[in-house]
Amino acid sequence: MCELFGMTCNKHVNVSFTWRGFITRGSKHRDGWGVAFYPDDLSACIIKEPKPSINSPMAQFLKSANIIKSKIVISHVRAASRGSATYRNTHPFVRELFGREWVFAHNGTIDGEMPNPKFYEPVGETDSERAFCLILDRLRDLGRDANLHERARVIEEEAKKLSSISRIFNFLMSDGEHLFAFRSEHGSLYYTVRIPPHNVMVKLVDDDLEVDLSSIKGENEVATIIATKKLTVGESWVSLPPNKLMIFKDGLLIEYQK
Amino acid sequence: MCELFGMTCNKHVNVSFTWRGFITRGSKHRDGWGVAFYPDDLSACIIKEPKPSINSPMAQFLKSANIIKSKIVISHVRAASRGSATYRNTHPFVRELFGREWVFAHNGTIDGEMPNPKFYEPVGETDSERAFCLILDRLRDLGRDANLHERARVIEEEAKKLSSISRIFNFLMSDGEHLFAFRSEHGSLYYTVRIPPHNVMVKLVDDDLEVDLSSIKGENEVATIIATKKLTVGESWVSLPPNKLMIFKDGLLIEYQK
Repeated sequence: MCELFGMTCNKHVNVSFTWRGFITRGSKHRDGWGVAFYPDDLSACIIKEPKPSINSPMAQFLKSANIIKSKIVISHVRAASRGSATYRNTHPFVRELFGREWVFAHNGTIDGEMPNPKFYEPVGETDSERAFCLILDRLRDLGRDANLHERARVIEEEAKKLSSISRIFNFLMSDGEHLFAFRSEHGSLYYTVRIPPHNVMVKLVDDDLEVDLSSIKGENEVATIIATKKLTVGESWVSLPPNKLMIFKDGLLIEYQK
Repeated sequence: MCELFGMTCNKHVNVSFTWRGFITRGSKHRDGWGVAFYPDDLSACIIKEPKPSINSPMAQFLKSANIIKSKIVISHVRAASRGSATYRNTHPFVRELFGREWVFAHNGTIDGEMPNPKFYEPVGETDSERAFCLILDRLRDLGRDANLHERARVIEEEAKKLSSISRIFNFLMSDGEHLFAFRSEHGSLYYTVRIPPHNVMVKLVDDDLEVDLSSIKGENEVATIIATKKLTVGESWVSLPPNKLMIFKDGLLIEYQK
């Protein structure tokens, strides 16, 4: 199985120290790791490798070099269930839709048969990339002028369909503006919200590192972190409700009409 | 103006020392740099930044870390003529077509009016990305079962059309298997072929570095390097003929029927 990490913030921030904890999980998920972020909120930079993050000079470099600066980050560590450990099978995946780059990372295994996507075609062999293509096809069919509520309905509908033929079906997806999150009934996905004042001592689960959030967060910085497993001790992590698409923007959960 | 770099080889090789010379050209082309390569021959890894390569810790890291291992490499340093220095305007660009990732980098300025692409939409504001989308639209219309000759004809036709409304129109493009190269009449694009035995002393134009090619090339390694300006002294660089699509595969120029 894989693990997911998502971050949404109201400002362009350097990747949080929490990601540094997450990416060390590559020791258990050895088939690949990847991270996607939006330097200009429209186009996505994807850096990924089909090998453990733990042995990766690139992951090491990214942890230290402050390259990842974005309002939205999606990251993934992979233990393959479908598809070999190749670059094309490594998450996150990216496609352009209506002049924006969409990014997708998935955790779970889709057991049922999936149709062939119409417009977007998988490059690799994973069920994950195929699911992404199916969701994008639906959004494309919906048209460029669809609003967020209409898009949300279509994404949730497709997600539930895929979830119904999966043991576990969790994903994070973004269009550079919104962070979409979905967990299936037997899946696992938690989030924690960081709102000022950030006077909280937080300790990484995967590391001895402990920090006062106020020392690394700006005064007006609002952020939500989403992850397969709780990444920190000292702040409250809430489980996402099952089979409901959650949409975050500028660091906060937003409402949409069903 | 910008500069282009392309490499095609019959084996997966670490990026040649020639690229290390090329990427230092970021001192003159300060609006961005980028490199695309194919870790598994189907999907492309793109690393790019809207800032000079010369000040970039990432470019420095890539020069030393042997991350870029591929049969095909396309690289670009940018001095913007159209579009701001943002990530979305930085070359190379990538799109999926028929289950492969296509990559494109361009040098020149398209002065004439271009139609709106039908399927593929630019994310940024460059004439370059729009040209790429128009070429891919043509290939998509041609269908998934088209052979290389049919594709070559369509690419050349579209390239000539774009060239006719440009002062200069040079590009490199790849589908992970072939490296396509095109130069317009007033453009500049050279190539050099490296065939064993590699007993040649070669010196970088942009650096004091001089090497015996046989010390860095495998015995059976065949490669072609393409660049806007000659990058080395000690080997012969040939100008690409104008307004003719050239196709390279596994390190060598290949013939196709028009």
